[in-house]
Order: sequence, then structure tokens, then C-alpha cells
Amino acid sequence: MFATRDFLKLARGAALGIAAALLFVTPSLPQTDPLPSWNDTAPKAAIVSFVEKVTTAGTPDFVPEPERIAVFDNDGTLWVEHPMYTQLAFALDRVKALAPQHPDWATTQPFKAVLEGDMKALAAAGEKGLMEIIATTHSGMTTAQFQTIVSDWIATARDPRFQRPYTELVYQPMLELLAYLRANGFKTFIVSGGGIEFMRPWSEQVYGVPPEQVVGSSIKTRFDMKDGAPSLFRLPEVNFIDDKVGKPIGINEHIGRRPIAAFGNSDGDLEMLQWTTLAGGTHFGMLIHHTDAEREYAYDRDTEFGRLDKALDAAAVNQWTVVDMKTDWKQIFRN
Amino acid sequence: MFATRDFLKLARGAALGIAAALLFVTPSLPQTDPLPSWNDTAPKAAIVSFVEKVTTAGTPDFVPEPERIAVFDNDGTLWVEHPMYTQLAFALDRVKALAPQHPDWATTQPFKAVLEGDMKALAAAGEKGLMEIIATTHSGMTTAQFQTIVSDWIATARDPRFQRPYTELVYQPMLELLAYLRANGFKTFIVSGGGIEFMRPWSEQVYGVPPEQVVGSSIKTRFDMKDGAPSLFRLPEVNFIDDKVGKPIGINEHIGRRPIAAFGNSDGDLEMLQWTTLAGGTHFGMLIHHTDAEREYAYDRDTEFGRLDKALDAAAVNQWTVVDMKTDWKQIFRN
Repeated sequence: MFATRDFLKLARGAALGIAAALLFVTPSLPQTDPLPSWNDTAPKAAIVSFVEKVTTAGTPDFVPEPERIAVFDNDGTLWVEHPMYTQLAFALDRVKALAPQHPDWATTQPFKAVLEGDMKALAAAGEKGLMEIIATTHSGMTTAQFQTIVSDWIATARDPRFQRPYTELVYQPMLELLAYLRANGFKTFIVSGGGIEFMRPWSEQVYGVPPEQVVGSSIKTRFDMKDGAPSLFRLPEVNFIDDKVGKPIGINEHIGRRPIAAFGNSDGDLEMLQWTTLAGGTHFGMLIHHTDAEREYAYDRDTEFGRLDKALDAAAVNQWTVVDMKTDWKQIFRN
Repeated sequence: MFATRDFLKLARGAALGIAAALLFVTPSLPQTDPLPSWNDTAPKAAIVSFVEKVTTAGTPDFVPEPERIAVFDNDGTLWVEHPMYTQLAFALDRVKALAPQHPDWATTQPFKAVLEGDMKALAAAGEKGLMEIIATTHSGMTTAQFQTIVSDWIATARDPRFQRPYTELVYQPMLELLAYLRANGFKTFIVSGGGIEFMRPWSEQVYGVPPEQVVGSSIKTRFDMKDGAPSLFRLPEVNFIDDKVGKPIGINEHIGRRPIAAFGNSDGDLEMLQWTTLAGGTHFGMLIHHTDAEREYAYDRDTEFGRLDKALDAAAVNQWTVVDMKTDWKQIFRN
């Protein structure tokens, strides 16, 4: 008897057969450009060539899908980092928001400097002052409360120059690159010196990178059970700084395997690029060089934030691809 | 003109149509049991009911796929932890392997105790002695070297009672559960008190859990560049203990969102289960109760390793499902 089940089996076989045939034929059809915001210059060609290499089975450069790990710095690589890191803008706004509960801040540095918009006095407070501001604004609440604070801020804050939400000042070419890599079986991670809990509330929506694929700097937390409800309380104590030598350490701790592609824009990314590209195997390293003062910013060797100096020299030696934003990117910001 | 392209479009449409029809019809066909090693007792019904709830769109219990995070303890939950943690067996074997390079160990505790198999003297060395053994055997090499050491050991070591490789002493019902959850859109993570780098070399092959989904205890590492080659050197310094209150902290650090299902077997998993199940939302908590001295082991409240005491009391209060291994599992070890 030819049962329904047998028919379905046959039908399924036929469907799969047609699907397989389509897969086989599709490559000869005109392709849609996966990187339309990239000009047809060397960096785009290098990316496409790398992806084709590692995804072509049976070649020495082929990399199995689970090992296709790509890591991206955030500030200056995926979104604007000038005139100051977005997270610092957040911290300064938080000081202003919290000021009514802290009348003493009107006369105490570095808070006084923030409240008066005195950037010179703030700079004079140095790293110690900055850490005090970060500690004060990023701790003393539960992780859930902090997530809400970040989400609310990121939804309303505006970049001073472009007058757009920060999440609109992400680079369209990099969004296309993230999507292109994922479409080719890559798992994309953010590996940032910025706070891990500052990025996670919006990384999935903005970059398509889920929280579990975000690596960043962190502070310590304490587990509490109160009235039968569990929470994690954020403490004013550094847990991990995910910058410079911290990046390969953070990658190893979170991902547990070596990436095959790394994207950065500053000396803070040097060790991540070394770790990714200098241990043999198929690999790809890229630096975003900010060269477009008109559409974005132009800076490299003598900048306070996101300095690109040693890494730029290393790029020449190690054949990392350097993106000249002005020349290589048709469009800067997201659609 | 009816071009090849139009034909392919039509063919693709037809293929999709058939595929959709199959999807629609399939549920009415007899289903294969996804949990064949589970007896038809309450725990199996609870698992299936939970999975059906969170995967049924349009209901209040529905959970979108990216939020379907399930966390599993390892020792005693996914594989045997008696008569001692496998990682401790590894450490003791490493002491024996390294002894020729350390002649002083023949007369120095706790190493002397290990070399003479004197478990009483080893116990007398206490936690301090144990930490010394762990530090000595787990550090002083690169992460790549440690990975090779673990891989080689796990391939050859045998459990003393069952005389099988440790990776064969993983629980078949739990392997089925991991696969069942993944087939239903869950991302499965290991969250273990054991060493993160001890589990990663084999977790993907044995459990289908990739390195980036393993959370565990860790030691600090140092990034080195030597002769143009990057490496991470393992230091004899604790970085993080992923046990008890450390589990929710590790989950937050690595995953960044709250799991909806947690599986453990001891008081070390209590806080992970609280974090997962006591903050509202759809959730599932399960404890594996070792009740089968014949096929595996029977232990709970008064055991040195994997003590199940407070968590067992909490299970009753919080409606966590407790698996009675003897009654609920048709088969213990993997096929």
C-alpha cells in the first residue's frame, strides 16, 4: 500500500532535490552586492576574498563553520568615538541627573567640573577623577536597574555634532560587514574596552550581536537574595579591563577559541589583532583609519581617544588591511 | 521570454510550497520520542510541558528564541562526579606525570601523598593542599599547551570503577535533553564550578556545547609576544570561582541575560537555580538526585563532593523538578 507517509517522504525528497538544484544553480545568477556601502577599492576586495577562501570546502584555507569567529572593537570601529567615548557622555549625563541627590557635588571635584561643563578642570582630575565618575555612575544599583538606565539614556541622548541618537552613528559599511560575515557562517563578537553592561542593552538591536557575544570591561557584582527575589548588585570595584593585552585575555575567557578575523581602529586593538592573525592558520586583520573630517573625523597618531599609532605601523608589517574611511566608504552612517 | 531565471523562481516557489505543506502536515504524523532514555514519569512530562509552553507562539508563556537560554552544571549533572571530580583525577595524574622533573615531591606534602596514593594524608592537606596541587598542575604553560595536555589525558584516562573513558560516563538522558532543547531553539550553556579550560577541549564533541558556551572557574593568564608569536600564559592565580554565588555572577558576565531553564545537582547550583527561576517569567528548574547506587551512585545530604542539601529543600519550596535517577532514568550512561 502506498501510504500517506510514503507520499510525504517522496514529496519531501523531491522538495529537497529541487532545493539542492537551486543551491547549485544560484551562484551563476547575478549576485546582490552584500557590501554596497563599500567602494570597490582594496579593502572590500580583501574582505570578499577572505570570506570566499574560508568558506570554500576542500581548500587548505577552508575553516569549519564553528571556528569562524570574528571579533569587532566597538568605539571607533562600529560607531563614532569622538569627541568622547559615548559611555563617557553617558557618565557625565548621569552625574547631572544624580546631582540633586548630591548637593556636595556642587563644590567637590571632579563632579563640580562635570556640572559646570568645565572640561579643563575635568581633564585636570585625570584618570583618577574619571574612575571616580565611572564608579559613581555605574555602580550602586542592580544589573536590572542599570540596564534600564542605559536603555532609557541611549533612546534619548543625542550626539552634540550630528544631533542624532548615538545608535544611528554606527557605520553602515560595518553593519553590512557584520551581516555579510554572519550570512557566511561566522559568529560575530564585540570585544570592546567599553563596559560590557553598557553595550548589551542595545547591541542585539543595533548590531545583531546578542548579549552573550559581547565582551567588554566590567565591574564586580554581588549576588543578593532579598524577600525571595534574586538580584546582582553592581559594586564600585573593577573586575576586568578589556583593552590592549586585556582583549586577547577577554577573548580567551569568553570565547575560548582564537578568532580568525579581527577588526579594530586603535592601539587598544593591537594585541587582539596580534592574537588573531599571528599564530598561523587562515586569518584576517583590519584597521579602520579615520581620515574623513568632513563626514566624520580625521585622527590617528596624536589623539587622546582611540589613538592609532603602533597598530598602524604593525598593520604594514603584518599585512592587515587598513580602511581609509574617506576613500573606501561610500557612506559612513547607517541608513 | 520565459528565461531560466523565471523558471528557477517558479521552481523555488514550488519547492518552498511543498516544504511549507510538509511542515504543516508533519505534526500529525507519529512523533519520535526525543527523550527515549527518560521513563514516562513526572520529570519527563514536566520538561516536555515546559518546552511546549515556551515554544508556542501567541501564549503568555511564549519565549522568543534568542531568550531561550538553558544552563547546565557539569559535575554530577552531565557526568559522574564520584568518587572524585574528574578534574581532580586529572590533577593527581598530572602530579604523577610531572614527578620525575620534581624529585623533591617524594618528600614534600601534598605531592608525597599523591605519589604514594595516600588519600588520608591528601585529605589532611585540606583545601590549601588541594589548591597547591591545582595551581601546580594547571599553570605554568600556555593555554594552547594546556589544551593539548587535557585533550591527551581525557582520551586515555579511565574511570576506576567503570573502566571507561570519562567522556563515556556522561548521562544519556541529559544528552537527549540538551539535544531536545537545542532542537527547540534553546542555546545550551555549561555553567560549572570546574575549570573552564578543562571542559572546553571536549565539550563540543561530547555535549554539543561549543567553547564559547562554557562558563567555569578560571585562573589568570598573561599575554606574551615572543619572536612575533602571541600566546597566553597560565598563571598560578585564581581569576574566578564559578560556584555557588559565583554561578549567577558568571552567568551574567558571560551570557548577559537570565536563563529560563537551569539544571543542577548540588548546593553549588542553588544560586543559579534561584537566579533562573525566582525573578518572574516562564522558567524551569531541575535537580538531578543521585539515587542509584547500583547503576551509578547514591548520595545527597552528607557527601563531600556535590552535596545536595539546601538545594533539595529549596526544590520543594520552589517547585523545581527533582529527578530520581533510579526511577526516572531508563538508561544512565551514553550509548
